[in-house]
Amino acid sequence: MDPRTVHSQQNSKSSHLALDIGGSLIKLVYFSRSDECLIDDNEGNSSNESLVVSKKCPVLQGTLHFAKFETSKINDCLEFIMRNKLHLGGCQHGGSPDNYTVKATGGGAYKYADLIKEKLGVCLDKEDEMDCLVAGANFLLKAVHEEAFTYTNGRKEFVQIDQDDLYPYLLVNIGSGVSMIKVDGDGKFERVSGTNVGGGTFWGLGRLLTKCESFDELLELSHQGNNRVIDMLVGDIYGGLEYNKIGLSSTAIASSFGKAISDNKELADYKPEDVARSLLRMISNNVGQISYLNALRFGLKRIFFGGFFIRGHAYTMDTISVGVDFWSKGEAKALFLRHEGFLGALGAFASYENQPGSDDPIVRQLVQQSPISASHTGYKIHGSRNGECNDNESIECSVYVS
Amino acid sequence: MDPRTVHSQQNSKSSHLALDIGGSLIKLVYFSRSDECLIDDNEGNSSNESLVVSKKCPVLQGTLHFAKFETSKINDCLEFIMRNKLHLGGCQHGGSPDNYTVKATGGGAYKYADLIKEKLGVCLDKEDEMDCLVAGANFLLKAVHEEAFTYTNGRKEFVQIDQDDLYPYLLVNIGSGVSMIKVDGDGKFERVSGTNVGGGTFWGLGRLLTKCESFDELLELSHQGNNRVIDMLVGDIYGGLEYNKIGLSSTAIASSFGKAISDNKELADYKPEDVARSLLRMISNNVGQISYLNALRFGLKRIFFGGFFIRGHAYTMDTISVGVDFWSKGEAKALFLRHEGFLGALGAFASYENQPGSDDPIVRQLVQQSPISASHTGYKIHGSRNGECNDNESIECSVYVS
Repeated sequence: MDPRTVHSQQNSKSSHLALDIGGSLIKLVYFSRSDECLIDDNEGNSSNESLVVSKKCPVLQGTLHFAKFETSKINDCLEFIMRNKLHLGGCQHGGSPDNYTVKATGGGAYKYADLIKEKLGVCLDKEDEMDCLVAGANFLLKAVHEEAFTYTNGRKEFVQIDQDDLYPYLLVNIGSGVSMIKVDGDGKFERVSGTNVGGGTFWGLGRLLTKCESFDELLELSHQGNNRVIDMLVGDIYGGLEYNKIGLSSTAIASSFGKAISDNKELADYKPEDVARSLLRMISNNVGQISYLNALRFGLKRIFFGGFFIRGHAYTMDTISVGVDFWSKGEAKALFLRHEGFLGALGAFASYENQPGSDDPIVRQLVQQSPISASHTGYKIHGSRNGECNDNESIECSVYVS
Repeated sequence: MDPRTVHSQQNSKSSHLALDIGGSLIKLVYFSRSDECLIDDNEGNSSNESLVVSKKCPVLQGTLHFAKFETSKINDCLEFIMRNKLHLGGCQHGGSPDNYTVKATGGGAYKYADLIKEKLGVCLDKEDEMDCLVAGANFLLKAVHEEAFTYTNGRKEFVQIDQDDLYPYLLVNIGSGVSMIKVDGDGKFERVSGTNVGGGTFWGLGRLLTKCESFDELLELSHQGNNRVIDMLVGDIYGGLEYNKIGLSSTAIASSFGKAISDNKELADYKPEDVARSLLRMISNNVGQISYLNALRFGLKRIFFGGFFIRGHAYTMDTISVGVDFWSKGEAKALFLRHEGFLGALGAFASYENQPGSDDPIVRQLVQQSPISASHTGYKIHGSRNGECNDNESIECSVYVS
């Protein structure tokens, strides 16, 4: 299908597609409008004010949608975009339909630019990955109610962020790899560290060890496992005793996968769920520790964890929380984000506001329409045919356009 | 064989056996005397002075020997000890041969105390693991010439340690698990951190992934591998490009094992050597990073790495060195120890000097006999029948006894 034929069919209410193409996953954010009105463009608009009609500035009301695909199945993603005509609601330079651009970030924005031009007929307007992560996190933390939460002993507790007391914080984005960013304000940040042991390691190693076909299957499997079967605990070394002097309990993990040394078992002799559990715990704990050590360097008390590795998975969050609490002796706090996986894509979406010389409406500000209704709209995206496109919580919001 | 029958055969020149029984390996240190003479007990004895005969204090001249066994094959280790009568040259409380004690550290000193009492007829005198690691490291750094070295770009360079400028330093012992200890002086230290991703993880996971039968086989295998086959590099995500803005080259590892996500290969489709290489690099790099972050916390410029994970393996040391250099921007230095694996056992050995009320000679001080000859005596220990007991560099030295 010639993508140009699609251009003429533009009748979608969806607009402003933004992509974050990572090493493992492609994340999509786009806006679908439910209504259009004009409101006052004063500063400090509350969510109620967004309903006020004014002639000063048009506002689009609608919903932010989220979707994801495996990067290795990029063709499914492109088909999903075409079918829903998402690529035609972005910005258009000049009059020709050839000049549609879509905001994109992540390494894949470079790697797949030609493929996307060929298949969709649009150019990618590349935004820096770190810029987008920070912009996305700041947006969520400022504009979306019940976005950040702590997770301790199986309890999720939403944290209301005081916007005057948001900065500085450490943002830890656990994608295929892990980036750790000290955020001091809007657009003010420094990538201070990272680790190559992240979601890609969990999925890659986990796939080799368990033959799981997807990340979610592996996570689900880990939920049923017992890491003590394969991890070497302090008690395994100390004959069931604690190592009191340095505060290590007998059940603390001394060495991840250490029991496999002496068990005289092969991989096939272990249950895949136990292997998956050990792996998840090893990686979560390691990320938690390195994050805390970096927070400590800069005296940051709050660490926000994002990225698709977490996926709201209780055990992952619990391990990270316990790790941060243990290493910081309760000084630092792990916080999680409800839209954890879409920081980069949201940042790319928000960057439409910086688009110079566009003929299309420009997003100037995102304001969540209703704080109360934001959490569970239950909107489902019926995406690719292979079921790889999972649902995600959408956000009802208003988009200010100039 | 009743161990009591062994006691009566005591004619060995070996003495002061000390054990470090870890989760994966048992490390042995013992002294064999070549001569006996009396020397002056003045402070500040140089190695030459140790040859001076005096009536004040007897000195045993001889060699410190090192050996290791897998903890899972503890019976081979005990047989080696019995055959060489190493357990009979320790300390004896009272007149009965039943009262022989052997200094021991590590969790296995608790776990295997009963077994050792049963098989060898000796009691273990348990010394704290961290105390021993620090005592062993301090001994090596102060008394043994050409002990510490840097490793950069395949070049080993010995570092002469100024004893007045030794403290504080960070000691990182990579055994099954990893301990990170801030050392401020003799017996003055704090375990500040650690990680459960260490030698036990390399061996345990490596065994499951490659079916290697021993740690050394796995290390050897990793030497022949190429981690780029299975690691996701920055260039893999960015279409061959660098991510310049944050200083990540295209060949930097973005995600260890991350390529396994999308390769559509099973474990059997990868070469075991490539898998081993990726694993080694992942763990070495991670330990290097966490070590650096801890050194940074306390402003420590020197990090000494010990523990059997390293085993003088070039690629391991290179990765750790590069990691410390990269993260510290050249501020901190990774140093390695020639007798890396025997810190705990040496510390337990040195603790004989603290033995109260012993009838046996007490080691009061270890002085290396000849700085120049210390490095390569080539002494071989012909140990267990299964070849698990590898050679290690012995140290010629003098042992002062009271």
